[in-house]
Amino acid sequence: MLGRKLAARLGRDGTADELELVDIAGAPVVADVAEPGVAERLVASRPDTIFHLAAVLSGEAEADFDKGYRVNLDGTRALLEAIRAVGGGYRPRVVFASTIAVFGAPFPEAIGDEFHSTPLTSYGTAKAMSELLLADYTRRGFLDGVGIRLPTICVRPGAPNRAASGFFSSIIREPLVGEDAVLPVSEDVRHWFASPRAAIGFLVHAASLDSAVLGDRRSVTMPGVSETVAGQIESLRRVGGDGAVAHIRREPDETIARIVAGWPERFDTRRADALGFRADADFDEIVRVHVEDELS
Amino acid sequence: MLGRKLAARLGRDGTADELELVDIAGAPVVADVAEPGVAERLVASRPDTIFHLAAVLSGEAEADFDKGYRVNLDGTRALLEAIRAVGGGYRPRVVFASTIAVFGAPFPEAIGDEFHSTPLTSYGTAKAMSELLLADYTRRGFLDGVGIRLPTICVRPGAPNRAASGFFSSIIREPLVGEDAVLPVSEDVRHWFASPRAAIGFLVHAASLDSAVLGDRRSVTMPGVSETVAGQIESLRRVGGDGAVAHIRREPDETIARIVAGWPERFDTRRADALGFRADADFDEIVRVHVEDELS
Repeated sequence: MLGRKLAARLGRDGTADELELVDIAGAPVVADVAEPGVAERLVASRPDTIFHLAAVLSGEAEADFDKGYRVNLDGTRALLEAIRAVGGGYRPRVVFASTIAVFGAPFPEAIGDEFHSTPLTSYGTAKAMSELLLADYTRRGFLDGVGIRLPTICVRPGAPNRAASGFFSSIIREPLVGEDAVLPVSEDVRHWFASPRAAIGFLVHAASLDSAVLGDRRSVTMPGVSETVAGQIESLRRVGGDGAVAHIRREPDETIARIVAGWPERFDTRRADALGFRADADFDEIVRVHVEDELS
Repeated sequence: MLGRKLAARLGRDGTADELELVDIAGAPVVADVAEPGVAERLVASRPDTIFHLAAVLSGEAEADFDKGYRVNLDGTRALLEAIRAVGGGYRPRVVFASTIAVFGAPFPEAIGDEFHSTPLTSYGTAKAMSELLLADYTRRGFLDGVGIRLPTICVRPGAPNRAASGFFSSIIREPLVGEDAVLPVSEDVRHWFASPRAAIGFLVHAASLDSAVLGDRRSVTMPGVSETVAGQIESLRRVGGDGAVAHIRREPDETIARIVAGWPERFDTRRADALGFRADADFDEIVRVHVEDELS
């Protein structure tokens, strides 16, 4: 989803001379970067900038341990190794999509830029390990990496999925088109969000960042909007009216509530702010972005 | 060095029914755990406790990138995977020797238990990645891991080596036997130390710890002695007299001074303290331990 939107944005900006989209399925180039030899072929054309978004997401990486590590860790490592193997002074900017799932509870009230990574999922673990590799390959001069820890993307377009985080999007997305959505947690649950448009902005900004200012700490927690489910619902009401809100069905789910309780609520992102990364203004804007980008 | 001392200690304690020592060279069982199939053979006897100390140290991992990752990351992962593959409820205690090199400057005055890992060496990177694996394999129920971040071991017995940290030991070790030692940094350099005896104590304590109290955060920074080079020298004087101190030759080395400037000086180890890990009382004790254990 982010790859497609990123390609569209880069196309509109006209900043890229050439753009090659690679995905495990559906993109112009279909390839599995974790397969031997694939990453080598992909970097043979020596692209200046590489966006590495490929991932098995949280739920699937938890369900299929081997697949998660194969794609999320070994795939990333294969890509970094392929870049290193090119040699001859080749040192591309590598923008790596990391995640706030590198953090695990218990948390301080606002998680700062020096808080440790203690992930509570195999997905977050492989991402945290990839961040470490990215920093070391950068320090050794093999590439020029920038890792950006994305907030939960909301409103995620498309069909409902069964990710534990899916309800954050579906309670906005479905009601706006007159369909019911299930809310499995209480309204005081707070989380950290960015719209797809803001996330694309992070990726593009990371690509053009003077990375010397990052020093040796190459991964940065992205700014976001800290909002409760109650606040989400009020934003939905302001954009879609009471009729939209009436489509939210409360069906408490203890399992989801327990998972979500381990997730971050709020970050202090002064480093990203100073580097020029910009979040959505508030959750109202996140809802409006969804309406503009997906429903117009 | 630690493996040998650990085996001697476990032998003295008499707490282990059986003890199998494995090393890349010199031990009763010679094996490279990073080689395919080796870890599987080693865990086939289902040991209750596994101490994983094997590592390519900092200097060599920096000089030989591939070897460092192969041993320090892939070797650890191969061991964890082999344990997981045993299955059938096998869930050994795995004590993993990590390092304060998982941290990289800039630092707060005292590094706390929630400070992030931003290593500045490939050695520290692979160790930090291994910590993440250890935690995830534990969380998933494949094993029961405890990672202990060892301070710089001082006084390290044996011949002088060319590690950047070597002088911390050699300025004590060589003068005590009437030989000259080179001090390449200024006396106000401060660092974090544990004697070999204290380090063995950490490993043994980690093996018997009720690890349920660790929760999901499986790696703990070990307590140590924060001391300056000037303080080291005063301890040497108290134990060995002015004659010993006269064997220290000041030969400033800018390269070593720059490397050492990126190292931690002091930790706040309240978590390890609460878990019952005990450091040496002070640097005097560290010198006395060396005299007792190596020179008697």
